[in-house]
Amino acid sequence: MKNKNDVEVLIDGTKYTLCGYESTEYILKVASYINSKIDEIKSNMPPGTLLDEKTRNLLMHLNIADDYFKSIEKYEMLNEEKNDIDKVLFELKHELASAKDKIEELKKENAELERRLKKY
Amino acid sequence: MKNKNDVEVLIDGTKYTLCGYESTEYILKVASYINSKIDEIKSNMPPGTLLDEKTRNLLMHLNIADDYFKSIEKYEMLNEEKNDIDKVLFELKHELASAKDKIEELKKENAELERRLKKY
Repeated sequence: MKNKNDVEVLIDGTKYTLCGYESTEYILKVASYINSKIDEIKSNMPPGTLLDEKTRNLLMHLNIADDYFKSIEKYEMLNEEKNDIDKVLFELKHELASAKDKIEELKKENAELERRLKKY
Repeated sequence: MKNKNDVEVLIDGTKYTLCGYESTEYILKVASYINSKIDEIKSNMPPGTLLDEKTRNLLMHLNIADDYFKSIEKYEMLNEEKNDIDKVLFELKHELASAKDKIEELKKENAELERRLKKY
């Protein structure tokens, strides 16, 4: 069983102790990502804009959720690609099996012809 | 060029007009997902727990970011699988090409043997 991890992180300048079963590395990665999204929102605002807490949080939710859904879309596209390759692979395996059968058949024909030739 | 979309959504009981280049369907999907995450946090708290706004928002950020990173992990695993299949496909293509060459070679040998047999 995984042990619980207490990890101190700094999110938007505030220190938090996050507790979870994930690795310290993972928790730090998530915290760093959240900070990068906060910075992104700040840098996308015209200078001097003051966003109220509620709007800023809504934007954060929307932006992170957008990354999430874009990632799902990427996954689905890759999955379609993989399925296409799977189909090609399936067909190639059959084609190769037929080619191997054909080789065996030709080898037998060949041996038979050689056997007949040796008679003369 | 895509047109900007104004979409009215209800997030945690508050009506917002979200404006973006994404489709209405996509914006509604993201809003619905955010509501589901809000419900998830509420239902995971012991009854009567009152979370302050800041902690609740932090939990939201962390939970959505966690979904995002889990989705990236899933993508990376699928990508590794796809790369493995690509390698197999590459090898099979070569094997098939060699098998086809072998068939051609055997057919020629065969024709030659038949030609020699006809002489007798």
